[in-house]
Amino acid sequence: MFKVVVLGSGNVAHHLISVFKSTEGIDLVQVYARHPEALAKLLPGEKITSKISDLAMADLYIIAVSDGAINEIIPHLPFTERLVAHTSGSMPLQKDNGQRNGVFYPLQTFSKNKTIDFKSAPICLEAENEQDFVILKQLADAVSDNVYQIDSVQRRALHVAAVFCNNFTNHLYTVGSEICKENKIPFDILKPLIQETTDKIMYLSPLQAQTGPAIRGDETTINAHLDFLKDDTMKSIYELLTQSIQKAHVTELQRIDEQHYHIYF
Amino acid sequence: MFKVVVLGSGNVAHHLISVFKSTEGIDLVQVYARHPEALAKLLPGEKITSKISDLAMADLYIIAVSDGAINEIIPHLPFTERLVAHTSGSMPLQKDNGQRNGVFYPLQTFSKNKTIDFKSAPICLEAENEQDFVILKQLADAVSDNVYQIDSVQRRALHVAAVFCNNFTNHLYTVGSEICKENKIPFDILKPLIQETTDKIMYLSPLQAQTGPAIRGDETTINAHLDFLKDDTMKSIYELLTQSIQKAHVTELQRIDEQHYHIYF
Repeated sequence: MFKVVVLGSGNVAHHLISVFKSTEGIDLVQVYARHPEALAKLLPGEKITSKISDLAMADLYIIAVSDGAINEIIPHLPFTERLVAHTSGSMPLQKDNGQRNGVFYPLQTFSKNKTIDFKSAPICLEAENEQDFVILKQLADAVSDNVYQIDSVQRRALHVAAVFCNNFTNHLYTVGSEICKENKIPFDILKPLIQETTDKIMYLSPLQAQTGPAIRGDETTINAHLDFLKDDTMKSIYELLTQSIQKAHVTELQRIDEQHYHIYF
Repeated sequence: MFKVVVLGSGNVAHHLISVFKSTEGIDLVQVYARHPEALAKLLPGEKITSKISDLAMADLYIIAVSDGAINEIIPHLPFTERLVAHTSGSMPLQKDNGQRNGVFYPLQTFSKNKTIDFKSAPICLEAENEQDFVILKQLADAVSDNVYQIDSVQRRALHVAAVFCNNFTNHLYTVGSEICKENKIPFDILKPLIQETTDKIMYLSPLQAQTGPAIRGDETTINAHLDFLKDDTMKSIYELLTQSIQKAHVTELQRIDEQHYHIYF
């Protein structure tokens, strides 16, 4: 049995605890939480500790706490030379702290009240040494079908890309729902379109999937939309993203031209 | 049988022709296209005309052409007082042109090479008079489960909202894929996250679903991301959308406060 201890009680910790509990071959021996009551529904009391000095023996300690708290917890671990992996997209691999460091970063958006299909959640791994990478991979493969080796620089890039693809797209849905609300239109009308937008990029590159007035260079519609928008922030977002779409496609056309150049001349 | 003529041969026309052909109770009597060869695979030659003077008799003429071409076609129709509906999200209901005007606007993103589930595509209807609205609704109900009455002002709003929820979100996927490419990360890693982002707002409002450094007020991560982004346009998008997320949530908190005020005082 693969013995794991999870440290933390937030969204990521919750989802990890649930999936570890239900996966064969994994023994979730203990969870450390400053506020154990947050985990009462998930685990029997004897598996939870709020004393870091009481941490049990395990093959792997997963630090699933906020970015700022990672460096506060690690120095208090009552052991050295064990495999300790954090789950953060933005923190680099830890070094020179007396442990064997790793990263176990599940790239998914977690909400406490919604179970996710962990099998499809990508898990990005990194370790200070090769043997520990193999250990992390063994655990990751047990819970997910999408396991990647991603170094700290790539993970930073991935986290930024995830902000664009998740946080920012979700905010554009908020803007869309706000426009609907102001005009007494049910936001539900837009949901099939939103679904189809996502479905499309599962088999087309987003650059190929681009449609709308910006890419068509349809200045009449663009101006009518800008005229319609009364909120300054919405107007700025509309202008900036329209310019950015047009710029991305000019760049892409240049790239294609250069390829032709290389092929034919 | 409900007799329909479609005018146009672009993406929307293609999808309408396909769904009308396969729907019981609808007789697609004719399609008008300036370039009939574009429709050769969809329809037998005798159903296609490139002469507007040859238009057949029908209950409804659907003008599925680009916005700019709508006003070029309508004056050449060889009849008056018939029900003529355009399919545009941005054009108002036509008036005073000798026809009975309507709008039949399917709010979906259409690609020529992908069939869509028309039953779930919302169709937004408007008509100059009540009887014609009933006719449009009869046709729309035959092909879709999501039929809405939407006036010209609402349709303009909806089109702007659709640009935010479809065109702009798709562009953010392009930005994400660009960041991945530069860092040798497969864009596929982000797809489960993108899928989950969309799934979430099917049962949560996007305002409630918001996560990430902007909404957490996590300035350390925000600054690290801005520092990471070298492209000026990407940096501007990051800054503007971060501010907009923070502003939207302050506004929402004020709104909740005001509600409490009204309830308790």
